[in-house]
Amino acid sequence: MTQPDLLTPAQLAQSLQLLRQQAPLVHCMTNDVVQTFTANVLLALQASPAMVIDAEEAAQFVSFADALLINVGTLTRDRRDAMLAAVQSAAKVGTPWTLDPVAVGALSLRTEFCQQLLSLHPAAIRGNASEILALDNQAAGGRGVDSVHQTDAALSAAQQLAQDYHTLVAVTGEVDYVTDGTRTLAIPGGSPLMTRVVGTGCAHSAVVAAFSSLPGDRLQHVAAACRVMSLAGEQAARAVQGPGSFVAAFLDNLWTLEVTV
Amino acid sequence: MTQPDLLTPAQLAQSLQLLRQQAPLVHCMTNDVVQTFTANVLLALQASPAMVIDAEEAAQFVSFADALLINVGTLTRDRRDAMLAAVQSAAKVGTPWTLDPVAVGALSLRTEFCQQLLSLHPAAIRGNASEILALDNQAAGGRGVDSVHQTDAALSAAQQLAQDYHTLVAVTGEVDYVTDGTRTLAIPGGSPLMTRVVGTGCAHSAVVAAFSSLPGDRLQHVAAACRVMSLAGEQAARAVQGPGSFVAAFLDNLWTLEVTV
Amino acid sequence: MTQPDLLTPAQLAQSLQLLRQQAPLVHCMTNDVVQTFTANVLLALQASPAMVIDAEEAAQFVSFADALLINVGTLTRDRRDAMLAAVQSAAKVGTPWTLDPVAVGALSLRTEFCQQLLSLHPAAIRGNASEILALDNQAAGGRGVDSVHQTDAALSAAQQLAQDYHTLVAVTGEVDYVTDGTRTLAIPGGSPLMTRVVGTGCAHSAVVAAFSSLPGDRLQHVAAACRVMSLAGEQAARAVQGPGSFVAAFLDNLWTLEVTV
Repeated sequence: MTQPDLLTPAQLAQSLQLLRQQAPLVHCMTNDVVQTFTANVLLALQASPAMVIDAEEAAQFVSFADALLINVGTLTRDRRDAMLAAVQSAAKVGTPWTLDPVAVGALSLRTEFCQQLLSLHPAAIRGNASEILALDNQAAGGRGVDSVHQTDAALSAAQQLAQDYHTLVAVTGEVDYVTDGTRTLAIPGGSPLMTRVVGTGCAHSAVVAAFSSLPGDRLQHVAAACRVMSLAGEQAARAVQGPGSFVAAFLDNLWTLEVTV
Repeated sequence: MTQPDLLTPAQLAQSLQLLRQQAPLVHCMTNDVVQTFTANVLLALQASPAMVIDAEEAAQFVSFADALLINVGTLTRDRRDAMLAAVQSAAKVGTPWTLDPVAVGALSLRTEFCQQLLSLHPAAIRGNASEILALDNQAAGGRGVDSVHQTDAALSAAQQLAQDYHTLVAVTGEVDYVTDGTRTLAIPGGSPLMTRVVGTGCAHSAVVAAFSSLPGDRLQHVAAACRVMSLAGEQAARAVQGPGSFVAAFLDNLWTLEVTV
Repeated sequence: MTQPDLLTPAQLAQSLQLLRQQAPLVHCMTNDVVQTFTANVLLALQASPAMVIDAEEAAQFVSFADALLINVGTLTRDRRDAMLAAVQSAAKVGTPWTLDPVAVGALSLRTEFCQQLLSLHPAAIRGNASEILALDNQAAGGRGVDSVHQTDAALSAAQQLAQDYHTLVAVTGEVDYVTDGTRTLAIPGGSPLMTRVVGTGCAHSAVVAAFSSLPGDRLQHVAAACRVMSLAGEQAARAVQGPGSFVAAFLDNLWTLEVTV
């Protein structure tokens, strides 16, 4: 494995500009808790979110969408079946899809489902360190939805997963890593306040889904997705009193984000 | 068809005052993404939201409510059945109900359901131009949940729908139109920032439902619902940096809105 | 019945400090409308929320959690079954659980379910006056989700419920009361603006669940939960223009809350 490189400002600027030009339509099948915030994050980046969840409609809709997000946060058996229908349809029509394996490991329904999904060719996977370790069968999972591991402890698991399933893996935390199993980019930054607001991780996955639909170097684009989130987060954290005002400032920053090369 | 008239400030003031006095209880059966924002919009206008979704409970609850909202945004078969039970109960007890046909057109479950609902006597329908055109079978729908048409292109479809189903149709966008098929009111205003926040359209429908429960001229009241939304939106947009801070400012403006005649 | 006592600042400070140290993991099975706000309230208090809703997963997850919240706000038959599985699992492993009987009384599914839950040993119950009266079979319920009674009218019902089911009951409104049937604490404070934001009551129940997991005097801890909410609410209300900006200020205040003895 090679050592991680850094994403350059020029790469970030190029990917972000491309995202705003393309304004991808992102079909989000995500959990109950983060729907509004996920949609608002995508809208603030000039992408278009759409949540369609019935199995038949989801399979239809994915052919109009530029990207699909599968987040197993409040999984039920019905939702699993609808997500599977959407992923199979995405494979057929070539829509790239991203997996967020929320709290995979200790809970049986989602753990079995995530293992099944791995073989259905995700374009990208985004999780915290505990989730990536659990997905690679190296750990039993985190504490609920929170990681109990640092991202560097999960880097080799991420690289292994990426190689095994020919996908990109973004393992996010204090430092984010994005890897295709060979090349790895490291993305420092962000703020601890982001862990005090629900949905920053889940919305991050939606942003990964959006960026992974862009033409060009997908590894660069997904790393840019991580940097966009951490940049808006660290800027917001400097300006606010707490997690309540953080949410508005974070979305405003995504909206106004300018990257100078 | 006659040319659209404008809503007068006196009409707006009268309708808004009536809404705040009556504080209608609005039974919202709406999509997963916009529940919180919809409730907060109604609360800021001094109305009372309540979300009851089980088929049996929804049929019971609608008899306590002053208005019912049906929004098909994250439709499933179970939710369709519960919505149908509520609408049938609303017809029996005389509770006026409003339809928001989100993304009708391209997706089969909701398209079939919306056509079924049309014959069950909605008091009002609110949609964007693409949705109103699709509901009138003149177009295949928009891009996901976003309109690809301007509202004036949908005005005659709105008038036709209103006549065919003896209902009011509000087609909303840069200019909103509210029509009963004979009389039409035009409501300019609002802000592009409203399209960068999820749920402004869906909440608009909830506000239409609330206003349509008031005694008096329903066309005026529904037009006032549109103007309340656009007025709060344009005031908020002037005061904020982006879509994050817009949400709070928008709700604050609904709360403090004063209309001088 | 004895007269209510007041919670002292020293008690409040002790309970709040303990909460922040223990950072309990709260398994929330709650309604669709308040998921995000509930999670953000817990996060702002340094607790960890997790929403797990499938019956099998919920029964598994409750053994990792420090507390369980059952809120019947958007009950369906499937959710009832999953909640029941979680509560039965909680009883087995000793996880304390809290009931929020939203709008109990007039709606049959939830009313029957809440009566069933009462015999399954909740650690605490939090409701508004109409809900507590309805749970004690003394009234038919409120107006939708809003109370039509003052809390002092429900105090004896709360005390009766607490005695009958060996639990704590928090009846909240202009003045909150927390009782175990023998001792009662009164918690004044808060702001009317809290009733203009959706989810303050439901989030209050999640905070009760979090505090009820702490070691020591549970009556004191639950009263502290009430005071934390009312204190953050009255501070926020003094600083804002309306219910939109209230949400951010409220969460910021929970985050920064300092109690001086």
